[in-house]
Amino acid sequence: MKGCWKKTLPGAVLALVASLWIATSNSIRADEGMWTLDNPPTKYLKERYGFEPDSAWLKNVQLSAVRFNDGGSGSFVSAEGLVLTNHHVARGQLQKVSSPKKDYCKDGFHARTTAEELRCPDLELNVLVSMENVTDKVFASVKPGMAEKDALKARKAAMAKIEKESLDSTGMRSDVVTLYHGGEYWLYRYKKYTDIRLVFAPEEQIAFFGGDPDNFTFPRHDLDMAIFRVYEKDKAIKSPAFLKWNPKGAADGELVFVLGHPGRTDRLQIHSQLEMQRDHELPLKLKILKRTLATSYSYAKRGSEEAREAGDRLRGLENTIKAWEGELQGLMTPQLMAKKAQEEKEFIKLVSDKPEWREAYGDAWPRLSNLQKQKLQRLRQILFRKPGGLRLPAIALQIVRYVAEVKKPDGERLEEYHDSQLESLRFKLYSPAPIYRAFEEVLLADSLKYAVEELGPGDPFVKEALGGKSPEQVAKELISETKLTDPKVRKNLVDGAEEAVKVSTDPLIVWIRKIDPVLREIRKWQEDNIESVEVACGEKIGKARFAAFGKSAYPDATFTLRIAYGAVKGYPMNGTRAPSKTTYHGLFDRACSFDFKQPFDLPQRYIDRKDKLDLSVGLNFVCTCDIIGGNSGSPVINKAGEIVGLIFDGNIESLPGRYVFEEEANRAVAVHTAGMSEALRKLYDAEAIMNELLGK
Amino acid sequence: MKGCWKKTLPGAVLALVASLWIATSNSIRADEGMWTLDNPPTKYLKERYGFEPDSAWLKNVQLSAVRFNDGGSGSFVSAEGLVLTNHHVARGQLQKVSSPKKDYCKDGFHARTTAEELRCPDLELNVLVSMENVTDKVFASVKPGMAEKDALKARKAAMAKIEKESLDSTGMRSDVVTLYHGGEYWLYRYKKYTDIRLVFAPEEQIAFFGGDPDNFTFPRHDLDMAIFRVYEKDKAIKSPAFLKWNPKGAADGELVFVLGHPGRTDRLQIHSQLEMQRDHELPLKLKILKRTLATSYSYAKRGSEEAREAGDRLRGLENTIKAWEGELQGLMTPQLMAKKAQEEKEFIKLVSDKPEWREAYGDAWPRLSNLQKQKLQRLRQILFRKPGGLRLPAIALQIVRYVAEVKKPDGERLEEYHDSQLESLRFKLYSPAPIYRAFEEVLLADSLKYAVEELGPGDPFVKEALGGKSPEQVAKELISETKLTDPKVRKNLVDGAEEAVKVSTDPLIVWIRKIDPVLREIRKWQEDNIESVEVACGEKIGKARFAAFGKSAYPDATFTLRIAYGAVKGYPMNGTRAPSKTTYHGLFDRACSFDFKQPFDLPQRYIDRKDKLDLSVGLNFVCTCDIIGGNSGSPVINKAGEIVGLIFDGNIESLPGRYVFEEEANRAVAVHTAGMSEALRKLYDAEAIMNELLGK
Repeated sequence: MKGCWKKTLPGAVLALVASLWIATSNSIRADEGMWTLDNPPTKYLKERYGFEPDSAWLKNVQLSAVRFNDGGSGSFVSAEGLVLTNHHVARGQLQKVSSPKKDYCKDGFHARTTAEELRCPDLELNVLVSMENVTDKVFASVKPGMAEKDALKARKAAMAKIEKESLDSTGMRSDVVTLYHGGEYWLYRYKKYTDIRLVFAPEEQIAFFGGDPDNFTFPRHDLDMAIFRVYEKDKAIKSPAFLKWNPKGAADGELVFVLGHPGRTDRLQIHSQLEMQRDHELPLKLKILKRTLATSYSYAKRGSEEAREAGDRLRGLENTIKAWEGELQGLMTPQLMAKKAQEEKEFIKLVSDKPEWREAYGDAWPRLSNLQKQKLQRLRQILFRKPGGLRLPAIALQIVRYVAEVKKPDGERLEEYHDSQLESLRFKLYSPAPIYRAFEEVLLADSLKYAVEELGPGDPFVKEALGGKSPEQVAKELISETKLTDPKVRKNLVDGAEEAVKVSTDPLIVWIRKIDPVLREIRKWQEDNIESVEVACGEKIGKARFAAFGKSAYPDATFTLRIAYGAVKGYPMNGTRAPSKTTYHGLFDRACSFDFKQPFDLPQRYIDRKDKLDLSVGLNFVCTCDIIGGNSGSPVINKAGEIVGLIFDGNIESLPGRYVFEEEANRAVAVHTAGMSEALRKLYDAEAIMNELLGK
Repeated sequence: MKGCWKKTLPGAVLALVASLWIATSNSIRADEGMWTLDNPPTKYLKERYGFEPDSAWLKNVQLSAVRFNDGGSGSFVSAEGLVLTNHHVARGQLQKVSSPKKDYCKDGFHARTTAEELRCPDLELNVLVSMENVTDKVFASVKPGMAEKDALKARKAAMAKIEKESLDSTGMRSDVVTLYHGGEYWLYRYKKYTDIRLVFAPEEQIAFFGGDPDNFTFPRHDLDMAIFRVYEKDKAIKSPAFLKWNPKGAADGELVFVLGHPGRTDRLQIHSQLEMQRDHELPLKLKILKRTLATSYSYAKRGSEEAREAGDRLRGLENTIKAWEGELQGLMTPQLMAKKAQEEKEFIKLVSDKPEWREAYGDAWPRLSNLQKQKLQRLRQILFRKPGGLRLPAIALQIVRYVAEVKKPDGERLEEYHDSQLESLRFKLYSPAPIYRAFEEVLLADSLKYAVEELGPGDPFVKEALGGKSPEQVAKELISETKLTDPKVRKNLVDGAEEAVKVSTDPLIVWIRKIDPVLREIRKWQEDNIESVEVACGEKIGKARFAAFGKSAYPDATFTLRIAYGAVKGYPMNGTRAPSKTTYHGLFDRACSFDFKQPFDLPQRYIDRKDKLDLSVGLNFVCTCDIIGGNSGSPVINKAGEIVGLIFDGNIESLPGRYVFEEEANRAVAVHTAGMSEALRKLYDAEAIMNELLGK
C-alpha cells in the first residue's frame, strides 16, 4: 500500500474513537477490524448493515482472494485465471521483465492475445484453501518448567512439524501462523502458483499520478491497476473461484467488503512497546531509510538507465517513509497514547481483580515493559549489522545458510529454512530477474559506511565486513567480481551443498562466510532474550483477552487473509468534506492545476483521447473498510459478491491505523471498476480483456 | 469574506513563522502585511521580488479601489464606472432588490443594456482620494493631567472637528481613522457614490458552489462575482481610475497585489487581550451566533418564501461562525499563544531596558492586563443588552438617538452622529429595502428570550424591555404594529426632531425610548472605563513600537484601504500539495463526486452548455497575499497594474491570520479572470460586458 505524509496529523485524527476490545458498548460498533475468515464479523454486520453473508458467499470470496508473495493482494476476476492487482504491487515484476531497451514500468504493457502474455521471473501467488486451529498442538509442545528460550524453540519445532506433515500429506504450501501475538496458532494451507504472466499494466504516470505527494491521500486520481493470468503446465488455469466484474462500481453509501492480506498492525501491542517504537525504533529506522533514499536518488541521477534501475527501490522507499512518518506522528499524538494507556489500565485492572487471572497472566505487562530496556541496549546492532546492498548480498547469505541449515533436523533450523519453505525459497533464489551491479555496489558501500559511522570501527561486524579496507573498496571488490548474478551459479552452489560453498572463491560467498557468525550471534541473542519473552507474554495476554472478552475481536494483521467491511463514504477533510469518489474530471483538473508538471503529467493517450472519455465516470473512491499496507490490490466486493473496486491506498488520516482505527476519517482508497472499465475500453482498446471480465 | 472550518486546525498552522515587528532578521521577509498606502512595503517588495511600484502605479490602484460600505471591497474595471466585487458582497443588495416573485440571489441577474441596470436601494461606495496624518492634532487635544475618560472625549471631539472642517471645505466624506491602536490618526477623504446599479450576478448556486462546507477552503470552484455600475446624476460616471482587464489571469508564481479593505485583525493586541478573546469573548459570541443561526433556520424552514427572506442572514451567520471558530482554534493552539507571549516578553524587555521608555510606556501592559478582569465583569451585559431583531429595532434606535444627539455640539455626540457622518447615516436609514416583519418578530422574540435566560428577570434591561410580558408577546406587539417599515415614516420622525419622537406612539419608538437609558448606561461605562484605558495604553504601546522599530510594520486592519503583496502559489495540504489554481474540470469533478447533491449542484446552464466551455481554464486560484474578512471583492493586480483575479475568501489555514500571518499555508482565494471571462462569454452570453471590460 502506498501514501503521502506531511509533518503533522490532520485534526480529525486527534479525535480518536478506537475501541478494539471494548466492543460491547451500547453504540453501534465502528466498521473496525481485519477479521480472520474463521471468525467473520457477522454479528456486527447484521447489527449495523442488516446483512449476513452465508458460508457459500464467504467461501467464494475466500477462494477468489490471492496473496502476492512479494507483498500485496489481488483477486481472481475471470474464470480463466485473470488476477487483478495494483500497478504498484506488479511494479517489482514489471521492473524485472524490463530492460534498458524496454521499460514496462514507465510505458505499461498490454497483451492483445494470450500468446503475448509475459511470464514473470519470480512471482508466487497463494490462495488460502483451508484453515485449521492448531493452538493446542503448539501449546502442548511447551513442557512445564521449560526455560523460555527452550519453549520458543519447542514452539517453532512443533510448528515446523505441523507444516511438514501437512505438506507431505497434501502437497500444499502449509504455514502455521501466529495470531493474537501467540494467543492462537493456525495451520493455513495454500494453493500455490508460480507461472504468472503479465496481461495488462497502464503507464506508471497514470497508475501513480500525483506521485509521492499524492501518495496516501485522497481525493485521488490513480489508475493503479495491473492484470495477470495464472498458468499451470503452460495453460491458463480454471480459477478456483472468481469475482464477477461489476462495471458500474461502488455507489455512495453502499456496504462493501475488502478481502486481502494486511501486513502489520500493532493495535494489540502494549503501551511500553508503543513507546519503544515511538521513541527509538521508528525514528532510527526512518533515519536509515532516508539515507538509503538519498543514496538511491544520487545513483538515479547518473542517467536515465540508472533512474530506471533505481525506480522500484525509490518508489518503495518513499512509500515506506511516508507511511512510517504518518505512523510515528500518530504515536506522537498525546491523545492516541493517552487512550492506549487508559484502555490498558482498565484491562490490567480487570485481570488483577480476579486472583486466578492475576496469577496466570499478571506478570506479562511488567515483563514486556522491562524487556524494552533490554532490547534498546542492542537496537543499533540489530539495525546496522546487516549485509546491505539490494539483492546480491542477500542471495549469498541465503546460499551460505541454506546449505548449513538443511543438514540439521527440520525442527532445529532457522525458521525460514524449514522443509515446508524450501520450494518457495528456491523459486525466489534462482530467479532470472536482472541484477544491477552498479546500483548494488553503491548501496552496499553506503550501508557499510553507515555501519562504521553508527557502530564504530571496533564493532565485530564492522571489523569482519571491512577487514581493514574502506567500504567503497569492499563493495567494489565484492560486487564487481561475484558470479552470483547468474542463477545457475546459485543453483550449483546449493546443489553442491556445504562442500561447494565451503570451497567457493566467489568473493561474496567468502565475505558472507566471514560475517555470518556475527549475524547469527545477534539473531540468537534476539530469539533467546527478546522473542522468547515476547511470545510467552503475548500468549498470556492473548489468553487473558479471550478469558475476559471471548473472541469478540480480531488479531493484529500478519499478512494473512482478512475480511474487512464498511460503507462507501466521504469524510471531513481540511475544513470541508471529501466526497466518496473522484472522477476523470478530477484527474484532468489536477493535471491542469499543476500545468501538467511532473508528477501531475499525463500519458499522451489521455490528452489525445480525452474527448472519447465520459469524464463524469468514477475513477477512485473511499470506504470505511479497515485496511493497511499489504492490502494493496485487494478487491472491494459488494453484497452480491461482485468486485466493485480495487484497494490501492489509505488516506493520510488512516496512517495511525497501525495503532488505532478511527472511523470518522480513516478511509481505504480504491480504484473504481467503472473507471477501470472506461480506461480499458476507451483509452487502451482492451476489448478482449473487458469481454473476459464481463464473462462474454 | 467567506470560509469553512472544522474542529481542529490543519497541521501547517502549528508551524507558525509569524514575526510582525521583528522584520529585520536575515532571512527574506514573508509576504506579510496589510499596508497603508502612505507606507507601502516597497523595501520588502524590492528585496524579494525586485519590483518597485512607482507613485503613478500606486495612485492608479488606489483610485481604482472601491469600498463597499455594507462590508466589502471592489474595484473599477472599466472607464464607464463598472465595479467588480463578489456575489456574496453584492448579496445584501441582491436580496433587497428581490421580491417573493423574483429572487435575484438565487437566479442571478444580467442587464443586457444600461437601461436594464437595477438601482440598489442603499448601497454606498467610497473611493479613497487623500490621506493626511493628523496624529499631532489629535494628541494635542489631550492636556496633561486629564483623566483618561476626559482624554477619550477630547480625542473624539478633536476627530469630529477635523472631520467636520474637512467636510465643509471639500464636500468629501471625511473620516479620521485610528491606526496602530492609537499610535497614529489619519484623515481619510473619500469620494462617495450612492447611485449604484446592478449589472450582472450569476446564480448563487455557482457563486457559492460547495456552500458552507467549502466556505473558507481551497481547492475551490466558485464564480463568486458581481458587477455594478456607478452613476451620478442618472448618468454612468467616468471612473476616477480603473484596472485593465487581463483575460488570461494570474499565472503560477507571478507577483500579485491585493488592494482592499480588510476589516479587522488583532495582531497587535497584547497577550492578555488575546486570552480574554480565547477564554471569554469568542466562545460567548459564538454561542450567541449559533443560537441566532438555529432560530433563523427554524424560520427558513417554514416555507420557500421564508427561506428566501432568511437567505442573506443565514449565509452571513454561517460565514461568521466558521471564521470565528477558526480564529478561536488558532488562539487555542498552544504554539500560537506561546509565540505571542515570547514576542511580547522580548518587546517589554526592550522597553524596560531603557529608563525613559519604561517611564513613558511601561505601565501599558499591566494596565491592559488588569482591564480584562474589569471588562469580564460586565461582558454578559455588554453582549445581551441589545435591542435584537434584524433591522426594525435598530432603525427605531437610530431615530431616537439621532434627534437627541444632533441637538448637542458636534464634539459631544455619540461618535456615529457627528455631522460628518449624518448624510451616510440618513441614506441607510431611509432605505426603501424590504423588511420582513415575520422574520423580525421571530428574531426579536428569541433575542429577548435569550437575554432573560442569560441576564435573569431582574436585569434592568430585561425589566424595561419586557415590562412583565413574555418575549413573544412583546415582539409580536412591537413588530406587528410599527409603521417604521415605511421610509417616509422614518423621515418624518427625523425631520420632526425631538418633539416628533417624544410624542410618537409607534410601539417600537416607545419601546426604544424606554430601553435607551439602560443601553446608554452600559455604553458610557464601557467608554469611561474600558475604551479610555485601551486607547491610552494603545497609544503608549504604539509610541513604544515606533521608538523601537520605526515604522517598519503595518497597523492592524480597520476597514481602511490596504495593499498586500505576494505570489500565486500552492501550499502543503492534508498530506499533499494544493495547486495554485483550480479549473472548470474541478468544478464538474466536485459536482459529480457528490452526485450533484446540494450544495454541490449546478445551475442548469452549466449542464446544458458544458460542451461549450474550455474545461481546462482556471476558475479559482490562491496567492500568499495577506488578507482577511472585508477584503472580499478586492482586485488581484499584476505588476502591469491589470486585474488578474478577484479575492473572495481565505483558505482554512488562513483563519488564525487574525492573530498571526503564516506564509507556508495562509492563502487568499480568488476568482481567476480567465474563469470569469469564460463564463461571461460562453455561459451568460455577456458579450457587451466583456467588450467593455476589454475596452473595446
